[in-house]
Amino acid sequence: MASQISTQAYDCSMKRKPRLLITLGDVAGIGPELVAKAWADLQTICEPTVIGDVAWMSRLRPDIAVVQATTQDLSGVVPGKMSAAAGRAAYDFLCTAIDLTLAKKADGIVTLPLNKEGLHAAGLKYPGHTEILAERCGVRDFGMMLYAPPGPNVKNAIGVVHVTLHMALRDVFQNITTKAITEKIFLLNDVLDALCERGPRLAVAALNPHAGDGGIFGDEETRIIAPAVEIAEASGLNVAGPLPCDTLFVRAQQGEFDGVVAMYHDQGHIALKLLTGLAAVNVTLGLQIVRTSVAHGTAYDIAGKGIANPQSLLEAARVAVKLTAP
Amino acid sequence: MASQISTQAYDCSMKRKPRLLITLGDVAGIGPELVAKAWADLQTICEPTVIGDVAWMSRLRPDIAVVQATTQDLSGVVPGKMSAAAGRAAYDFLCTAIDLTLAKKADGIVTLPLNKEGLHAAGLKYPGHTEILAERCGVRDFGMMLYAPPGPNVKNAIGVVHVTLHMALRDVFQNITTKAITEKIFLLNDVLDALCERGPRLAVAALNPHAGDGGIFGDEETRIIAPAVEIAEASGLNVAGPLPCDTLFVRAQQGEFDGVVAMYHDQGHIALKLLTGLAAVNVTLGLQIVRTSVAHGTAYDIAGKGIANPQSLLEAARVAVKLTAP
Repeated sequence: MASQISTQAYDCSMKRKPRLLITLGDVAGIGPELVAKAWADLQTICEPTVIGDVAWMSRLRPDIAVVQATTQDLSGVVPGKMSAAAGRAAYDFLCTAIDLTLAKKADGIVTLPLNKEGLHAAGLKYPGHTEILAERCGVRDFGMMLYAPPGPNVKNAIGVVHVTLHMALRDVFQNITTKAITEKIFLLNDVLDALCERGPRLAVAALNPHAGDGGIFGDEETRIIAPAVEIAEASGLNVAGPLPCDTLFVRAQQGEFDGVVAMYHDQGHIALKLLTGLAAVNVTLGLQIVRTSVAHGTAYDIAGKGIANPQSLLEAARVAVKLTAP
Repeated sequence: MASQISTQAYDCSMKRKPRLLITLGDVAGIGPELVAKAWADLQTICEPTVIGDVAWMSRLRPDIAVVQATTQDLSGVVPGKMSAAAGRAAYDFLCTAIDLTLAKKADGIVTLPLNKEGLHAAGLKYPGHTEILAERCGVRDFGMMLYAPPGPNVKNAIGVVHVTLHMALRDVFQNITTKAITEKIFLLNDVLDALCERGPRLAVAALNPHAGDGGIFGDEETRIIAPAVEIAEASGLNVAGPLPCDTLFVRAQQGEFDGVVAMYHDQGHIALKLLTGLAAVNVTLGLQIVRTSVAHGTAYDIAGKGIANPQSLLEAARVAVKLTAP
């Protein structure tokens, strides 16, 4: 009798799939059709709930239950066309998902893409999902990790955090500080601790070609980046660098590193886009809730055609499941 | 009888293999063992002649004929150890190859890597092969193309020319001019004209993330790069850009572009290293002779162990053969 109770307890606590909220994003984009396509696979990965618009989703798959999360009338929205209504609705979907997750009604959120212009047309002046999440969660220090799951071109998964992102290359220099780099190393280590089988092996990219070639091509490596690596090492982290970024990504691809701290947008994005194709995932760092996202946009050019690839959505759900593990 | 003569003429003019000079580079590096390993394959690609040191090469493969091209005593050189003697010899090999090719005794040169420190220890203050070639050929305007042959990760070959290369990232901004970009577009178009089956389709990379996102993240795209693209287009070239560089390389990988003009070292090198592994080739542009090179270094750490991979050498010979076609 005792063993039977113990088995039941095991079933309940260990085998229940995490409850993930899937927000539809901009319904004129490829989000809704990706959910329709991926639904059967999503159910094997997690216990998914769609946060969106019932009428819109039922056009594609009437069998998928949807939480109605906006009062916007979306009947006039056309696939591939930007609109304030779809922009506002995407915001509503996200806010509903955040509130449900903060209230422990769900274990995490996977977001489908919104359209920044639609958001702005609705009077919502956010750069994207992440800033809405940070504001509603009351968090000031947050970050993004771009995550390449293992695949044909990637031996082990690789997570990339950027020290700077959406700014002119010219402005990168004044935003690369030892403090900012150190923070990113620790953020990356924390999230990879939850995703890696072993302690994460990190690498920090150099800013200059050949990592400055001993100071001939710039001194940011010795002046700014190396001190951050030393601080992290002194705290017991497994971290190498600053390393020339072209060979660094080849070494990561071959399985030598689990995580990379990149100095600027294109340094990380050139590599990740080539390595992962459509499989990349975004993970928001620093929130009290789990949130992952597809790494692609609304893809208005192919929306409504049924040809969009749900691989990033499925990977985003898989990563969210790993992050919800106790 | 007439048809027989015609066939003979065909055999002589079309089927003779190009005569390529293979310079050994720094003999303490992996150059000599790569030649030994690749010799049978090289003979199927071209009519190869080794320009180097008879004694050194005969230790590895006494059956390979070598043109003795240095008076240095290399008997004390140890694989994996830098020396002035090997540095000077590498210079001698290259000069002999240049002179023979300029004198039409050969159709082109394929160089194996030298060691810059060895060169400097011999009192030869050149940054590398290319500057020696330019000086001895009497050429002031020259460039390098990094070339990714078709392979498992690359649908069609991709050639990349950089507007800036070995300088601090901070110094890139003052070296990116409309004139410099325009020159690189035309250089790239010229060499790809000889290598592509069709007219080359070129793309010019943006400097800033998202190609500046309409001016929010920098204005070099509209102010400097777009005018260069317009000049090239007005001359009838097939050229797109400035394009966000992360997606640009994915599009090139999928076969949409034959050539890419990159703004700075790591922009092109991150992509090419990930795409080609050991198969990349360097092509010198602007010389009156054909010269290609392996894209790797002397690899002192594995020299003499017999494990070096000759793939880049064979690709360099194949590209040189294409460039020697009339």
